[in-house]
Amino acid sequence: MPAVDLNADLGERFGVYDLGADEQLMGCVTSANLACGMHAGDPQVMWRSVKLAKDARVAIGAHPGYPDLQGFGRRDMALTASEVYVYVLYQIGALSAFLRAAGATLHHLKPHGALYNRAAVDPEIARAIAQAVADFDPALVLYAPFASCLARAGLTCGLTVGHEVFADRRYEANGQLTPRRHPDALIENLEEACEQVLTMVCAGKVRARTGEWLEVSADTVCLHGDGPQAVAFAKRIRERLAEAGVQVRPFARS
Amino acid sequence: MPAVDLNADLGERFGVYDLGADEQLMGCVTSANLACGMHAGDPQVMWRSVKLAKDARVAIGAHPGYPDLQGFGRRDMALTASEVYVYVLYQIGALSAFLRAAGATLHHLKPHGALYNRAAVDPEIARAIAQAVADFDPALVLYAPFASCLARAGLTCGLTVGHEVFADRRYEANGQLTPRRHPDALIENLEEACEQVLTMVCAGKVRARTGEWLEVSADTVCLHGDGPQAVAFAKRIRERLAEAGVQVRPFARS
Amino acid sequence: MPAVDLNADLGERFGVYDLGADEQLMGCVTSANLACGMHAGDPQVMWRSVKLAKDARVAIGAHPGYPDLQGFGRRDMALTASEVYVYVLYQIGALSAFLRAAGATLHHLKPHGALYNRAAVDPEIARAIAQAVADFDPALVLYAPFASCLARAGLTCGLTVGHEVFADRRYEANGQLTPRRHPDALIENLEEACEQVLTMVCAGKVRARTGEWLEVSADTVCLHGDGPQAVAFAKRIRERLAEAGVQVRPFARS
Amino acid sequence: MPAVDLNADLGERFGVYDLGADEQLMGCVTSANLACGMHAGDPQVMWRSVKLAKDARVAIGAHPGYPDLQGFGRRDMALTASEVYVYVLYQIGALSAFLRAAGATLHHLKPHGALYNRAAVDPEIARAIAQAVADFDPALVLYAPFASCLARAGLTCGLTVGHEVFADRRYEANGQLTPRRHPDALIENLEEACEQVLTMVCAGKVRARTGEWLEVSADTVCLHGDGPQAVAFAKRIRERLAEAGVQVRPFARS
Repeated sequence: MPAVDLNADLGERFGVYDLGADEQLMGCVTSANLACGMHAGDPQVMWRSVKLAKDARVAIGAHPGYPDLQGFGRRDMALTASEVYVYVLYQIGALSAFLRAAGATLHHLKPHGALYNRAAVDPEIARAIAQAVADFDPALVLYAPFASCLARAGLTCGLTVGHEVFADRRYEANGQLTPRRHPDALIENLEEACEQVLTMVCAGKVRARTGEWLEVSADTVCLHGDGPQAVAFAKRIRERLAEAGVQVRPFARS
Repeated sequence: MPAVDLNADLGERFGVYDLGADEQLMGCVTSANLACGMHAGDPQVMWRSVKLAKDARVAIGAHPGYPDLQGFGRRDMALTASEVYVYVLYQIGALSAFLRAAGATLHHLKPHGALYNRAAVDPEIARAIAQAVADFDPALVLYAPFASCLARAGLTCGLTVGHEVFADRRYEANGQLTPRRHPDALIENLEEACEQVLTMVCAGKVRARTGEWLEVSADTVCLHGDGPQAVAFAKRIRERLAEAGVQVRPFARS
Repeated sequence: MPAVDLNADLGERFGVYDLGADEQLMGCVTSANLACGMHAGDPQVMWRSVKLAKDARVAIGAHPGYPDLQGFGRRDMALTASEVYVYVLYQIGALSAFLRAAGATLHHLKPHGALYNRAAVDPEIARAIAQAVADFDPALVLYAPFASCLARAGLTCGLTVGHEVFADRRYEANGQLTPRRHPDALIENLEEACEQVLTMVCAGKVRARTGEWLEVSADTVCLHGDGPQAVAFAKRIRERLAEAGVQVRPFARS
Repeated sequence: MPAVDLNADLGERFGVYDLGADEQLMGCVTSANLACGMHAGDPQVMWRSVKLAKDARVAIGAHPGYPDLQGFGRRDMALTASEVYVYVLYQIGALSAFLRAAGATLHHLKPHGALYNRAAVDPEIARAIAQAVADFDPALVLYAPFASCLARAGLTCGLTVGHEVFADRRYEANGQLTPRRHPDALIENLEEACEQVLTMVCAGKVRARTGEWLEVSADTVCLHGDGPQAVAFAKRIRERLAEAGVQVRPFARS
């Protein structure tokens, strides 16, 4: 029976600022990637999010980003690999303290925003992230785009890698995401996005923007944590997966 | 044979900014309290400091402070107990990640600056700190001023408490430190400061500013991490303790 | 013909984070107090807010706060008067640059949150704020609670003071606001809040929580910038003021 | 009689952290570029630095950088031109408030670190900086490397441009600085560095690393604000310029 994990980036509020439909999405996903205070989140938000995720029985992951709250970790920064290593370690540790206090266990790590994008294509940065994860706890799963430097670095460091795919993003023929600036980057039709997920999960392939069919590993599907459609989409994709007989559960080491 | 621990607040550099004679002091103290990125320190500084402390074979403690880099954690902030709880947990966790990556073990926690001062007299804040320590790891030692709310909160939470005394600060008759604004707050003479330490460690008492003798528990002595005299003083106090037959070693649970 | 100013704290978004109904409220108020990047706001938010306020032809004021984004400037900090002086100067200057680039003029200043509350009762802090305003531009108006240290400090420094009242907050017999923790602190009924405003503006008095009538100067009324009711309330108060023949316009020096 | 300006980046302390020999260098330079609180400096440091610079009768410039205190503004960030525009405006404004309170006048602007380097080669970023300066005050001078995008953008925006040269950095044949990673990037011999300055100022040319002679405009020479040699070098270059009959004074519009 085919199976897949649904993950979302959550816990991205800050101070008085609200963001995302965390409470509802926690009931739809099987993995929650929680911000760790650098690109978003703060200690209070982290504590509340960890308790929320624990109660929802989802797999909890660290979601470290660049130290750039104002840019929400979406602006690339020319950090060295050793800087990335220490920033990631710092953020995993900070989040882990809340898990420990809540009696929960850290399951995985997925980098955020510009750090995720850079780790997909920069082997040194990818290695720094994977090494930080392995040095903290080699039993953690690394969520990484399929066919990326990050996925390869995770395997090199002996980590289990959960290959991530996107429901509503278009792919290029080389397996990378179509850049957001491209007019055809997003799949805006809900059913078409569901279709893409089903094909990736059940058939292990995806049709590139330019028509080619690519092989994909689809261990976990990234759902958006905010936007008006986030919850509706999460519910619909679960329905479609259920209809297709696909089990939805956290990605685990085989 | 009497014994005592010597601790210093280290790892308080930030970015390009230097501070403190960490390299030399690591060779003089038996416990290093390392800043955790809120009042001072940053992930790179923390990583370097953990490795330095591990190589120097000193007991490593977390030294969390208020989230106020510009004020170096010395300005009081009206945080609630639950805010203090999450800030302390965050900082312990962040530092612990570096210890884990370095193969070292966290030994103790000592709050910094205005947080330390408030925890000494505010039972709710003291309790929040002690609870965060206990929730993270009940085997950690809490360094706290003797006769303080923090020391009592530590015991209530089931922690081992290392009672801290100061070499170069004067005490009031109620056991609290003479406030810094008082003209007689500091003991500037090196030998007189050493004398105060020896009396506290060997005789378990200290003479208050106003002449009374107080009973003290002196498990650990705080040495200053910066200032031109820091290293000279650290060396001299070790000589005096050695002459008096006092063993210098990290404070440990009995 | 009686007249009054309606002000709101706006420009309090940060990075990706939304807050407040700025676009709608700009059309309802006559003065906009814009956050300056310390408790809220960032340079992009400030630039957009200045242009929005200019287009809406409202009087633009600086709204400086404590350097505490995570606490939204609502947590008291033990800053010295000289620290407050430089923080306020910094924030006025930063906002002014955007006004200058937009071809607009700074009209007033009103401190935010915990800084506002402290300035109401602490003469040294009040003086530091008023002095910063006067040193930057003695033609600026200082918005301050009536019967407060801040109002007095403004007059001492030669500033024009716009006395601020609240529509939906209850007053104590000494003229101070009933603390928020009090069950009766807020006037939740819309018409009752409008009534309080009309009595303050037209009759120059307000009924304290405990029944006494107090004299008030009501130059400007603070409207809330967020909350679901903000815009509805702003519209209703304007209607009621119009019906009562009260002119609504920015507070200006006589 | 030939003339030149000597400038240094000053006011780069932060909180308790010391940096640079500001007090001594203020007596050696004719222009001080003061940090504005993003890459370094804080409101208290800015206030002290402005007063120091005013007393030393040096021309005061704004020295804005990336919002990255931990990286001291030396790590490139993928900011858009419109982000750079607002960051620069914010920083000029903040510094100007202190000048206004001190009764001093802002003279020039020179971007810092990675922002300076990017503005040298990126026309859009250069334009954003020059536009912010012109929108704030078109009478300000823009200090920019000769033959750079920033110098050209300044002229396009109608600003007076002070062309900056370096005493102890080697130049490439295209007029750009030899990158720091190159083994021959720095001129470590004091007299050789003085020689390079004299040739640039008096003869309007410099010898590139690869031997070619380049024409240069040398309106202002950048001296280092920190490092053990900073003050000694500043004094020596003044002696050498005096011997050669070169007047040392702030760069001014002709």
